Amino acid sequence: MLTFDILEYQERLKNTKERMAREGIEVLLITDPANMNYLSGYDAWSFYVHQMLVVIIDEPQPIWIGRLMDANGAKATTWMYDENIMSYPDYYVHSEQYHPMEFIAEILNEIGHGNRHIGVEMDQYYFSAKAYMTLLRKLPNATFKDATSLVNWVRIIKSDQEIEFMRRAGKIAEQSMDAAVSAIHTGSRENDAAAAIYYELIKGTDEFGGDYPSIVPMLPTGENTSTPHLTWSESYFKEGNAVIVELGGCYKRYHAPLARTVSIGPPPERLERLGHIVREGIENVLDRAKPGIYLEELEEAWRESTRKYGIEKESRLGYSMGLNYPPDWGEHTASIRKGDKTELKPNMTFHFIPGLWFENDGIEMSESFVITDDGVDMLTNYPRELIVNSPFHFPDDSSGIIS
Amino acid sequence: MLTFDILEYQERLKNTKERMAREGIEVLLITDPANMNYLSGYDAWSFYVHQMLVVIIDEPQPIWIGRLMDANGAKATTWMYDENIMSYPDYYVHSEQYHPMEFIAEILNEIGHGNRHIGVEMDQYYFSAKAYMTLLRKLPNATFKDATSLVNWVRIIKSDQEIEFMRRAGKIAEQSMDAAVSAIHTGSRENDAAAAIYYELIKGTDEFGGDYPSIVPMLPTGENTSTPHLTWSESYFKEGNAVIVELGGCYKRYHAPLARTVSIGPPPERLERLGHIVREGIENVLDRAKPGIYLEELEEAWRESTRKYGIEKESRLGYSMGLNYPPDWGEHTASIRKGDKTELKPNMTFHFIPGLWFENDGIEMSESFVITDDGVDMLTNYPRELIVNSPFHFPDDSSGIIS
Repeated sequence: MLTFDILEYQERLKNTKERMAREGIEVLLITDPANMNYLSGYDAWSFYVHQMLVVIIDEPQPIWIGRLMDANGAKATTWMYDENIMSYPDYYVHSEQYHPMEFIAEILNEIGHGNRHIGVEMDQYYFSAKAYMTLLRKLPNATFKDATSLVNWVRIIKSDQEIEFMRRAGKIAEQSMDAAVSAIHTGSRENDAAAAIYYELIKGTDEFGGDYPSIVPMLPTGENTSTPHLTWSESYFKEGNAVIVELGGCYKRYHAPLARTVSIGPPPERLERLGHIVREGIENVLDRAKPGIYLEELEEAWRESTRKYGIEKESRLGYSMGLNYPPDWGEHTASIRKGDKTELKPNMTFHFIPGLWFENDGIEMSESFVITDDGVDMLTNYPRELIVNSPFHFPDDSSGIIS
Repeated sequence: MLTFDILEYQERLKNTKERMAREGIEVLLITDPANMNYLSGYDAWSFYVHQMLVVIIDEPQPIWIGRLMDANGAKATTWMYDENIMSYPDYYVHSEQYHPMEFIAEILNEIGHGNRHIGVEMDQYYFSAKAYMTLLRKLPNATFKDATSLVNWVRIIKSDQEIEFMRRAGKIAEQSMDAAVSAIHTGSRENDAAAAIYYELIKGTDEFGGDYPSIVPMLPTGENTSTPHLTWSESYFKEGNAVIVELGGCYKRYHAPLARTVSIGPPPERLERLGHIVREGIENVLDRAKPGIYLEELEEAWRESTRKYGIEKESRLGYSMGLNYPPDWGEHTASIRKGDKTELKPNMTFHFIPGLWFENDGIEMSESFVITDDGVDMLTNYPRELIVNSPFHFPDDSSGIIS
């Protein structure tokens, strides 16, 4: 069931160990499910209980430690020997009396690594405050170092196979956006549109099946377009509403997000104008992107383009992304924003999402792209414009786009 | 956009403050998105950045603190005054230089609560080790207490409206299971079945729309039925495969999970026998459940029923559930297992999932139920048996169940 060749996992592990050595980390305790997957192949929805991948700088294979019922899943999806799959009994789960980190600390002590320089992902969803305090208490001779995003930075440059997976995710994103556009009309509820999107996201194409994206489709509608992260309601769409659709195609945990704004009926002039401004800004940024420049220069390109229209954007314009698990497809490394000195290199991948949100409305258009040897290549190909739908559904022309 | 009457939120807040008083907590910092929703109404996919609901024991309204772009969403979905919605600038997001908890600590200091007895949810996905260490550093005069699951325990007894939402979720779960059963045959890939499930989960019924469940559908197939938390692949189903389907209907963030096992073609005798054993065990437990008994007695009822067949189950049999966000629909309070002394009370709700996993196979059948005045009532109504499908798809009889 391995997703990549075993050599690719070993290359990733080697790169991780090099970074560990530079940071003075001998034992890395990985709790980020994407980092666990990246190094071991482990893929299951078990991150709602404590689990960990232990990378020891002088051991050839990582150790997976998780819940007993998930051990068979670890054996099935990882490249490591079965001896490297260890599990804790079920009474540790959601208990006020026992904590899985006690069990894990005992293993580290037993195998002689409890007194080393140990890296932990301090600012990561699945490494709770209590998990850390428990390790501190049970490993009094260890020296802890913050290793947040250590593996994430190894992930930032993708292999060709990873890029191929993201291109497949891009195809899935395109067909899901088509389904969204078709479903946004006055005869349809927001959840009907979300259902149509989800069907395409998971069905995928005849050649490759879809995986669940790390973020659900967002569908802020009407006044709620003033904020990006509302999901959907069971209300019918109304004529005159604008709807922001942000979704992500996913193939084997690799993402390609895509956002567009759909107007139900002719849009207000203001929204149309915003559409042109955002499009021009996106194109200015894409023209600038190539290896060797810093991410902050992309933000400058955006600012140069939009400043003349009086647009100022407070929030970042995008971020590195690829492999991930809920609740985020972002990689938590480089961001497209002022002050980010990350140098662009081939096979870096970004979601560029210069959303604009005002007091009572907003607009989003986004693009996922990969840095090539001399510029960028898009992961999705979708009309880069404000989409204007007929308010009514025409069964014979399922798109209903006013052209 | 409020989901419940404002009086229901205030009742929940009152119950929370009573519990805070008992625990000696003056200020409760809530980072669990379900607890934030429960007390304020806040509902958005923004928990991938740091955010918080602050409950102050002597203040009438909680304070929401989150990212600037999410403040409009908080104004739209919560019952609090706009002054109680505060937000941090975007440069705090996924930064190695700034942490949102610095901003939050400054607010607590400014409004005069930085030196009080502060409860934090120490073992919760969205309260990272770094978040805690940052608060410790920035609030040196505070006394911190572990308040993990404090609000979760308030949530354990549902209101009638919450139960009604879970019944709707139950209807959605049933129709999604129908879609799963119809899609499991040799002409279909695992992801095709997942797509069919997702479509029904989100579309919901004509009366009420579906919400995204906190856990994606699980579809371990063939040998992988030996482990519960594998999602799906893009492989075609094979004749002779068994498929475990675990899914959860969701309505306005309230869940009703349901699991069944589907055999593609006649099942091995062993699987059939396991099906009967699990069914008998479930029925024994449901017969015993009523107000006044302890949860561990339900585990005893299971053990009495299954021991005679030589079945021993290591893992817990179920858990309290209801309102939640990814990655779990479980409530992290009471579990159906040995030693759990929680007394059953009317309007408690559980997912009872006595899955059995062996070296090369496994079976799951589950039920979601509510405790009534004198027994239990089911949240879903689905044939409680091993489902046997024809291996082939008959378009005219979309279910393909062998009867």
